Amino acid sequence: MNNRQERKLLTRQSLMNAALQWVEEGQHISSLSIREVAKRAGVVPTAFYRHFNDVEDLALNLVDELSKVLRQLMREVRQHRTDPRSLIRDSLSQYCEYVFRQRVYFVFLAQSLTGGTLTVRNAIRSELQYFANELALDLKRLGLLPQLSADMLDNVTSLTIHTVASSTMELLDLPASNTVALAQFQRRLQRQLQLVFLGAAHWQPKPAQA
Amino acid sequence: MNNRQERKLLTRQSLMNAALQWVEEGQHISSLSIREVAKRAGVVPTAFYRHFNDVEDLALNLVDELSKVLRQLMREVRQHRTDPRSLIRDSLSQYCEYVFRQRVYFVFLAQSLTGGTLTVRNAIRSELQYFANELALDLKRLGLLPQLSADMLDNVTSLTIHTVASSTMELLDLPASNTVALAQFQRRLQRQLQLVFLGAAHWQPKPAQA
Repeated sequence: MNNRQERKLLTRQSLMNAALQWVEEGQHISSLSIREVAKRAGVVPTAFYRHFNDVEDLALNLVDELSKVLRQLMREVRQHRTDPRSLIRDSLSQYCEYVFRQRVYFVFLAQSLTGGTLTVRNAIRSELQYFANELALDLKRLGLLPQLSADMLDNVTSLTIHTVASSTMELLDLPASNTVALAQFQRRLQRQLQLVFLGAAHWQPKPAQA
Repeated sequence: MNNRQERKLLTRQSLMNAALQWVEEGQHISSLSIREVAKRAGVVPTAFYRHFNDVEDLALNLVDELSKVLRQLMREVRQHRTDPRSLIRDSLSQYCEYVFRQRVYFVFLAQSLTGGTLTVRNAIRSELQYFANELALDLKRLGLLPQLSADMLDNVTSLTIHTVASSTMELLDLPASNTVALAQFQRRLQRQLQLVFLGAAHWQPKPAQA
């Protein structure tokens, strides 16, 4: 890579970091102006257009970055996985730790699930669906829930992923130093996911069901 | 009520409607300025301060309005309730219909669960907890899930309420005219809540459990 290409990548990264910084300060990405993000990245507003069409385009690129973060998390969770019984507990504790380590990406995730534009919301939903599909593959590989139809298995994994994703903002609102509250949060989420998997284990497929 | 008091109430309502209109346009409440909301309500900015301290204070008052909307919804759901078996299906179809009827309040709810300020998020969470508590009381009255501890029952009802609340934005993103997609959405959410209640029915309390 030559210097020119390197500088271009650096500017692109500065613009994305500036947008994340905006989110970290509690602002919403939809209220970020091109002038503001350019100022924070130390470039002139016209330079913005050499990298992104508009703020939505920048947000979609942040979703791509987030997908890398989520895939890395998934790998770590899989590495630490021991047996099916501790699957939920271990995955959750990994998740909570990871959320604090990559805080700003998860604030962006939580925000973009409800705010922002429809295009960005759909991009985030696709990421979560990818995550749910991977979980379904893992369950199959482990031979868990073999009686479920593909559709029902998707209901189980989607509910799992969405329950974790939608409780993320609550997790982020806990002070990282409050270990008692963190343990309570994890235990609560763990019980809720156990309920889902217990229900899934007892689900009876009805052949005549519409 | 005299004319002066009436006018004051009208201005207050105009300011709140202007804020909801802002949210309906896809903007986030946190990016609403006092100047903007006053302009939309047709009053001078200083008039804003006779009703609210700041935009967060206005948002907290919107949460109070939302709580009225939710309580009304709860009453309608209870009215239409026939037997425990159809509880989930009927409640969900009532909910979906209600969300479209009171669209802007539910956009505000979904947004405020992840965006906005911590104070507003906590106010919304308190509302959802109130809703979960009411559901727990209903289940007790119907004699359902008698084996669950109060703590576990709260996990069941909280998960139910949060699953519905956090899927609301997805519902709002569906075109109201697309009845096939709406039916799919409801069926999916119904299956997911059935999983939770099936898990709850099979939950075995362990006396020695920590």
